Amino acid sequence: MKNVRVGLLGLGNIGKGTYTILTQNADRISGMSNSKIEVKKILVSDINKPRDIEVSKEILTTDAYNILNDPEIDVIVELIGGIDKAYEYIKAALSSGKHVATANKAVIATHGLELMELAKKNKVLLLHEASVAGGIPIITAMLKPLCGNDFQEIIGIVNGTTNYILTQMSENNLEYEVALKQAQEKGFAEADPTSDVEGEDAAYKLTILMLIAFGVYVDPKTIPREGITKISKEDIEYASQFGYKLKLLAGAKNSSGRLKYYVYPTLVPESHPLASVNNEFNALFVKGDAVGELMFYGKGAGSMPTGSAVVGDIVSIAKCIGTDLLEITPSQPYPITEEELELTGESRSEYYINFLVKDQPGALGKIMTVLGTHGISIQSVMQRAKGDDSLPVVFILHETRRQALDDALAEIVKNSYVEKVTSILRVLS
Amino acid sequence: MKNVRVGLLGLGNIGKGTYTILTQNADRISGMSNSKIEVKKILVSDINKPRDIEVSKEILTTDAYNILNDPEIDVIVELIGGIDKAYEYIKAALSSGKHVATANKAVIATHGLELMELAKKNKVLLLHEASVAGGIPIITAMLKPLCGNDFQEIIGIVNGTTNYILTQMSENNLEYEVALKQAQEKGFAEADPTSDVEGEDAAYKLTILMLIAFGVYVDPKTIPREGITKISKEDIEYASQFGYKLKLLAGAKNSSGRLKYYVYPTLVPESHPLASVNNEFNALFVKGDAVGELMFYGKGAGSMPTGSAVVGDIVSIAKCIGTDLLEITPSQPYPITEEELELTGESRSEYYINFLVKDQPGALGKIMTVLGTHGISIQSVMQRAKGDDSLPVVFILHETRRQALDDALAEIVKNSYVEKVTSILRVLS
Repeated sequence: MKNVRVGLLGLGNIGKGTYTILTQNADRISGMSNSKIEVKKILVSDINKPRDIEVSKEILTTDAYNILNDPEIDVIVELIGGIDKAYEYIKAALSSGKHVATANKAVIATHGLELMELAKKNKVLLLHEASVAGGIPIITAMLKPLCGNDFQEIIGIVNGTTNYILTQMSENNLEYEVALKQAQEKGFAEADPTSDVEGEDAAYKLTILMLIAFGVYVDPKTIPREGITKISKEDIEYASQFGYKLKLLAGAKNSSGRLKYYVYPTLVPESHPLASVNNEFNALFVKGDAVGELMFYGKGAGSMPTGSAVVGDIVSIAKCIGTDLLEITPSQPYPITEEELELTGESRSEYYINFLVKDQPGALGKIMTVLGTHGISIQSVMQRAKGDDSLPVVFILHETRRQALDDALAEIVKNSYVEKVTSILRVLS
Repeated sequence: MKNVRVGLLGLGNIGKGTYTILTQNADRISGMSNSKIEVKKILVSDINKPRDIEVSKEILTTDAYNILNDPEIDVIVELIGGIDKAYEYIKAALSSGKHVATANKAVIATHGLELMELAKKNKVLLLHEASVAGGIPIITAMLKPLCGNDFQEIIGIVNGTTNYILTQMSENNLEYEVALKQAQEKGFAEADPTSDVEGEDAAYKLTILMLIAFGVYVDPKTIPREGITKISKEDIEYASQFGYKLKLLAGAKNSSGRLKYYVYPTLVPESHPLASVNNEFNALFVKGDAVGELMFYGKGAGSMPTGSAVVGDIVSIAKCIGTDLLEITPSQPYPITEEELELTGESRSEYYINFLVKDQPGALGKIMTVLGTHGISIQSVMQRAKGDDSLPVVFILHETRRQALDDALAEIVKNSYVEKVTSILRVLS
């Protein structure tokens, strides 16, 4: 049995999970990898900080290069998060012929292609199963057992924070701010939740998913996205009355060579498998030309679930060490497509529109007329109970171009009977 | 790029799907495997039979050994089904140093350990992702990205035929016989549905799942099982009123060294992810000590979904050909446990009991008294509307030993006010 020596960069949440699994399930892991896996050194910011796991102080170091330059270490496990330092360390590791496993979506979404090239040049592996949806093995599934499929669509609920908030808003009739505070108290949202609630985190993950499913690189900054900060409990309630759940979706769809992608809060029909994914759970819905529709559901974050994926990558690397096969063929890290895909963020969609209109006869009819003259047809409409001077009117519109919708709305809001367009949301169709 | 030559045994449903995917997505598959994969010969029963796919007659043969003895063929893909012939051919292939991919649950559940040993001895791979739940990549997921987990439980809806029948009975209020006929007309059930509806097919798959999740071999014939032929639409309706869906589950649970396994029609709480798996869909629910709860959902049968899994295996084999690594380490085909697991089919469970009792005062109280004297406590009870001399009384019982339940029922049926025990079903807890 060979010895495989690992250097962990980071002993935060995921680092602790990874270390715990490697220790606790050592026999099983050594059987599966045919290796004795030893964590030789761990990078921390403070050696003497009290920790809730047992780890010998002798293997802790505050100097990353003490690990990166150790010739005995075969595998670097990068779990510090963030972009710049992680990028520097991964590059140093790959350049010196070390394999890398990382859980870092930001660095892979930003520098993945370059790092994969570097790994290939140095004949080492760079694996990142944990970078999308934590413990759910979506990346390995697409690269291995599903690799014969031409993927048509992938839709993910890939951010547990926002899914927790939206679920709580829906189930307990809470406003966004209240649900956010609750999520923070329960540890499901960070003190500064911006990256999660504005959809940036989901965009990173979508970039990685598109790389694997469609073989294209889309800069996460260019992905059209909306966060959930403006969602009201009324929108969630109205959506529910039309038979939909509101979810923050990260999706990409290949319609005959046109790749449409987005991160949007979206109305999901209650019959769709994604509609019942609640609270901190994540799910990936995948459509392949051979396999049809598949869904993967599980914990997308957290110490142990994410550690589970990291350990899977460490075992994959360990199995390859000392052989002449690198599991993800290094000559082709991702299945980069030769097909010309037209990339597009915007496109046709069904829409949910919530207007606030003055309570006067004929207002609804006038709105419907304007929508009609712009070629927009209406799927359903709901006028809310009165009791005030103004009242909400909610439409679900059939598929339409966004430009047509914007033109119609510009005309509608000019009329005195419309106070405002309260919200515009997409509907999954 | 290397050439990999494949011999297909069988051009039925799955054979056609596999051949179609290999042809249709050839570029993608060759990119993923770094190989040119050629189907050199195909075993059929009749060369001149009209077929709905385009395949050159020159590669068809009716003699399996014409393929098995061809020194140019690297990979045998066994898709003829059944046990004896498949076993013979796989053995011949492995013995002559050919890799094997198979979709055959019966042969793997029956002879898997022996065949894995043979593969190991000959330094070749024997992969069978398609043998459980068709296109859902559960086997690869457990052996690779989840391999660091100590699995605690696995529950599957792994038979599409029975799930289709139960869903139709539930949604359209059909009796079993009517739903079965409909399934046969739609191609979801075979002319002789015995293996599906009696749970034999599910038991084969459970044997394979237990091998991978718990590292133990349990003969499928020894798995306690009940089919769905005696399920009535009333049972499904009553279950629904208590908040449950009825599903045929194949499950195994490791409770501190005691492995309980079964194939039973089971009441699943509506909030459980398995409850919303309908019609021909399959799902696997897995609990690992690190990853927590995961669910995989998709098409468990059919030409293209099953072909998708077979092609995934062919690509895995192709990547390994000519290297010194066999992806599933040949020295250890499955993670056979060294832990002493006590195998047990029977154990404690919550139960659903449907009695037919005479409509006379006090009958319900008497039944409850007898249950109480046997230490069985009641979770809920429902007495159905009257209108007849006799009426159904339905109980959901808290967890109890089966022996205690049987003793209580023996005593209850002796009483004149009880006409019969209509049904006894387990409840997932």
